[in-house]
Amino acid sequence: MFSMHYTMNHRYWTMLIAVCRVREPSRPTSIHEDARSTENTMSLHLKPDQSKSIATLAPLAALVVFAGLATASWPSAAQDETYTPEFTADKQLKLPHGKIWREWPFVGSLVTPNSLNDGEAPFPEHHVVYIDPVSWAHYKKTGTFRDGTVLAKELTLVRAPDGANENGSTDEVSGTGYFMGEYSGFEITIKSKELYPDEPGNWAYYTFGHHLEPYSGTAAKQPAEACNACHEASAAEDFVFSQFYPVLRATKPK
Amino acid sequence: MFSMHYTMNHRYWTMLIAVCRVREPSRPTSIHEDARSTENTMSLHLKPDQSKSIATLAPLAALVVFAGLATASWPSAAQDETYTPEFTADKQLKLPHGKIWREWPFVGSLVTPNSLNDGEAPFPEHHVVYIDPVSWAHYKKTGTFRDGTVLAKELTLVRAPDGANENGSTDEVSGTGYFMGEYSGFEITIKSKELYPDEPGNWAYYTFGHHLEPYSGTAAKQPAEACNACHEASAAEDFVFSQFYPVLRATKPK
Repeated sequence: MFSMHYTMNHRYWTMLIAVCRVREPSRPTSIHEDARSTENTMSLHLKPDQSKSIATLAPLAALVVFAGLATASWPSAAQDETYTPEFTADKQLKLPHGKIWREWPFVGSLVTPNSLNDGEAPFPEHHVVYIDPVSWAHYKKTGTFRDGTVLAKELTLVRAPDGANENGSTDEVSGTGYFMGEYSGFEITIKSKELYPDEPGNWAYYTFGHHLEPYSGTAAKQPAEACNACHEASAAEDFVFSQFYPVLRATKPK
Repeated sequence: MFSMHYTMNHRYWTMLIAVCRVREPSRPTSIHEDARSTENTMSLHLKPDQSKSIATLAPLAALVVFAGLATASWPSAAQDETYTPEFTADKQLKLPHGKIWREWPFVGSLVTPNSLNDGEAPFPEHHVVYIDPVSWAHYKKTGTFRDGTVLAKELTLVRAPDGANENGSTDEVSGTGYFMGEYSGFEITIKSKELYPDEPGNWAYYTFGHHLEPYSGTAAKQPAEACNACHEASAAEDFVFSQFYPVLRATKPK
């Protein structure tokens, strides 16, 4: 297990093998499993490793390779894939930068069209749910949502460029149905004992608006009765609606 | 730009910086952009880099770090994310192993319910479209589908555990709409001048079945009139229905 630290500019690259952590022999059970795991990828910033499988922590060597001729950009997959929620001083959650959630593993989608909900769907209208990659890797191993899990839900309106049928569907070459229009909302939920000791299941919910982009830059935690209560009452698995998400059912270890 | 080659066993790790490729100074415009790019991630196997931005190709150094005490498993994100289609001797496409597509970037979803299509939706019923990560990185940079692009479409039935409304929708806590049931089909399309010089747009289409899992293990290329013709006639962008996929529209460089 390695963490490396790179410092680069246009004419130099400096590579420091800062820490080499040693753990008991273990092989990934699936190459996919580890593709998104921070445990085995490279990181621009050293960070504590939460793996319980670490047997020893041994700095091995500091290695500097200096090549004045080389120009390189070497980003880190792990940095991108390890999302850490950021908050304002008054505890508002900041909108994740770069819309990073759109590259997270897809959990599921559904559509509750306005036209089938008296013009006021609670979530207008397509929902797409994503999970942060580190928590996805954990879910695949354990079938549980780790402390720190982040789920993102983005909404889009139903596409109806030339008008829609009475039920809101449109007739496209793929058939009659509900197609995606423009982005129309964004929400996040986070599970954390430390941050939300008093929330049921330690899940907190944030809404960055149900409207076209741009979304709000920050969001206050919703009161438990606004979101959490419904998840607690109806979601099949630890406040998550896995009954709607085949990939969770298919992936959960048997 | 680097490619590295690792050889490992339980008691040793050997790191070879096999080739260090140099290119003109360029910084990623987005850290996400590069997170899934093979150009900037590590690969277990050296492979030709197709980037046209390479100015110079200069082997710099071969560096071996040998540490007998260390035990490491160091998988490669790039290896996992670089999907190479595999074919049988009679040119049938093999079903990708491990359902790897379910971790690829999400392109879009839509639903054409059987109930709104005389009981016989062309694609029953939810579609979810994914793109292979390397082609996604390319699309973000260029707004085009590179030669080699692979798109995967997986289907699920509409969920209706307690029966459905006449239009096929169900009433759930999130509202009335269409929710995902079980996986019900899988298809792939590949763009390749080399493999499909005579297909319009060099896109070929493969269907692994419209039925519950398990899917067929192999699939023959569909005749152009079965899939390609419709994509050619109606898809907004190089045979891809980007009019249905907001993430493509939002991501395409302006």
